[in-house]
Amino acid sequence: MGKLIVGIVGTSSASKHVIQVAEKLGRLIVDNGYRIISGGLTGVMEAVSRGGQKSENHTNGDIIGILPGLLKTDANKYVDIIIPTGFGYARNLIIVNTADVVIAVAGGSGTLSEIAFAWQFQKPIIALDFEPSQSLVEKIKLLSHSDFKKSKGWSSIIGGLCLDETRTDTIFSAENPEECISIIKTIFRNGLK
Amino acid sequence: MGKLIVGIVGTSSASKHVIQVAEKLGRLIVDNGYRIISGGLTGVMEAVSRGGQKSENHTNGDIIGILPGLLKTDANKYVDIIIPTGFGYARNLIIVNTADVVIAVAGGSGTLSEIAFAWQFQKPIIALDFEPSQSLVEKIKLLSHSDFKKSKGWSSIIGGLCLDETRTDTIFSAENPEECISIIKTIFRNGLK
Amino acid sequence: MGKLIVGIVGTSSASKHVIQVAEKLGRLIVDNGYRIISGGLTGVMEAVSRGGQKSENHTNGDIIGILPGLLKTDANKYVDIIIPTGFGYARNLIIVNTADVVIAVAGGSGTLSEIAFAWQFQKPIIALDFEPSQSLVEKIKLLSHSDFKKSKGWSSIIGGLCLDETRTDTIFSAENPEECISIIKTIFRNGLK
Amino acid sequence: MGKLIVGIVGTSSASKHVIQVAEKLGRLIVDNGYRIISGGLTGVMEAVSRGGQKSENHTNGDIIGILPGLLKTDANKYVDIIIPTGFGYARNLIIVNTADVVIAVAGGSGTLSEIAFAWQFQKPIIALDFEPSQSLVEKIKLLSHSDFKKSKGWSSIIGGLCLDETRTDTIFSAENPEECISIIKTIFRNGLK
Repeated sequence: MGKLIVGIVGTSSASKHVIQVAEKLGRLIVDNGYRIISGGLTGVMEAVSRGGQKSENHTNGDIIGILPGLLKTDANKYVDIIIPTGFGYARNLIIVNTADVVIAVAGGSGTLSEIAFAWQFQKPIIALDFEPSQSLVEKIKLLSHSDFKKSKGWSSIIGGLCLDETRTDTIFSAENPEECISIIKTIFRNGLK
Repeated sequence: MGKLIVGIVGTSSASKHVIQVAEKLGRLIVDNGYRIISGGLTGVMEAVSRGGQKSENHTNGDIIGILPGLLKTDANKYVDIIIPTGFGYARNLIIVNTADVVIAVAGGSGTLSEIAFAWQFQKPIIALDFEPSQSLVEKIKLLSHSDFKKSKGWSSIIGGLCLDETRTDTIFSAENPEECISIIKTIFRNGLK
Repeated sequence: MGKLIVGIVGTSSASKHVIQVAEKLGRLIVDNGYRIISGGLTGVMEAVSRGGQKSENHTNGDIIGILPGLLKTDANKYVDIIIPTGFGYARNLIIVNTADVVIAVAGGSGTLSEIAFAWQFQKPIIALDFEPSQSLVEKIKLLSHSDFKKSKGWSSIIGGLCLDETRTDTIFSAENPEECISIIKTIFRNGLK
Repeated sequence: MGKLIVGIVGTSSASKHVIQVAEKLGRLIVDNGYRIISGGLTGVMEAVSRGGQKSENHTNGDIIGILPGLLKTDANKYVDIIIPTGFGYARNLIIVNTADVVIAVAGGSGTLSEIAFAWQFQKPIIALDFEPSQSLVEKIKLLSHSDFKKSKGWSSIIGGLCLDETRTDTIFSAENPEECISIIKTIFRNGLK
């Protein structure tokens, strides 16, 4: 029986705070007996993989990286299983579809595309909200060029929304890694579907 | 020298009004000497292809359909060149990257993923706004499950926004097909880049 | 109604003689009202596209190039419709599956993979034999490292063979472009299937 | 540090003898501390995965299956990490490129395409020869429709050959699973490259 696989989508260039949160998230995922799948590169992908390696529960094989290119050496050094696809951004679909649940951590347009694919593939989605005190209207206003740098990325915006009428649920919003784990436990309390 | 290629992304199940707009858009694109590339299936994809066929300027080869599956018979009957990929939703990336400019027509999560990829691929994006009188805040409020059916889709929401800090422009908003053509002419007034 | 599409698979680095044959083949294909699809790069792909352009029957849109990378500028200058996939060698599957019939022109391991995929996709395959006077046994002997340079490539080897038991036909063998066209006309004498 | 990954390519419908050999091969691969990657379906893919599970050295995560479709339930029950791609036959490229060494076990046109891609990707290739006493010329003669069923598949044919001039080595030929392992140990005696 395979382990539950948590897909992490997020920016390759992240702030120090986002990196710290991603690393903690990675450790908690492996602590709880799940695997991590990500894009295998830098930023959030590297932090979450490093966190997974630090878990006392880590087994070689728990951390999977699906690379856009053909070179295994492009992967960050914390990935156990490096899968170089050569399919460019299309590898995003493999990450999302392999995952049993997807967590978005900050992120720009690449992360937005992965969230949209996760929605299409009927995957539960959890968005880490780095600015829970701000209203959706205020956040949306930041989506103009001059203000985007003040934004905390799509994971802080998209929680609570639905992307179209094909699903009856909404994207989960979590304020921290612990809440992500708690949501996963609730979703899969009856085991893998 | 190749013709300019306009990528159309939009829902397979569209309202009558959206279909009429899409058909008109298709006709205008071919009237102006451009090619159309789309997902080659039903709904907006079929309407825009049918419109292109109706143009007096139409040449066999102007209308390209990039299919998710392997069967050419899945294409709508207005496509001149059917390209069956067998790559599923990953074919969305080919549509968007082949296009010189992308127009979003209504659309759910699939269209949102294509808009996000178009942004990543540095393509100019035009979003058809079917509800220009409504404010962004009002539209965003519809992105909750109970109200989504009242929404006119992502193309009415995303115009004017930027998706991340990698680009200094924003997504164009157009209220009708004529305005789409006018924007394209402005973007490419100096020829294909 | 779309035109019949002829897929050309072959080496990017070809001898002068192979290039001449490929160019003639391209011209004949378009003379006969068919489209050409290839990998859009150099060598055989460029020669066959150039030949197609030289046909008096050529219409803009007859020559399609499916690129491995994301840059349209990688295409040779004779391609009418450039489709940059970003999927690397996986674009070979799109070429072969879009074609109604596949012609192999010389070729190494890349061409061999395309022939194998064409077989899987149930496409008729024609192999140009540049050494028809040599026996299969003699040709196979050249498939050892020291002699491979003397080989005329896989298209001279594979004609007449079957690749597995899933099909009841064999790969056609043709000695020149005229014979390729003649075989195509026989296969499709009742129209596109 | 990741484990060495052995890619297995072979038919989904294999004879009883081929299945037995594949299962033994799978067990030996995991006995020696390597991972297995395959297409995750039936036949050779299932047998090699089942063999890997039977190794006393097996750790959850050692057996990876890269599926053509989107459904995890398509995988055989011996795969630890199921990766559903939705890319059809294009998933073959991922298998081959993720592997550090590729072993062909019998096989038809699909296996031939994977061998050709492994050659392009510069991977060492080992072909299991199920009929070592037969000459290459005799084997090639079976590659005609009426006799193909008597053939033992491409892995019995292709050992010792080179596929084009881009590489200076040839495909290894092995008569049994033990010899495959022995060849792998020789190739990687200085560690993963």
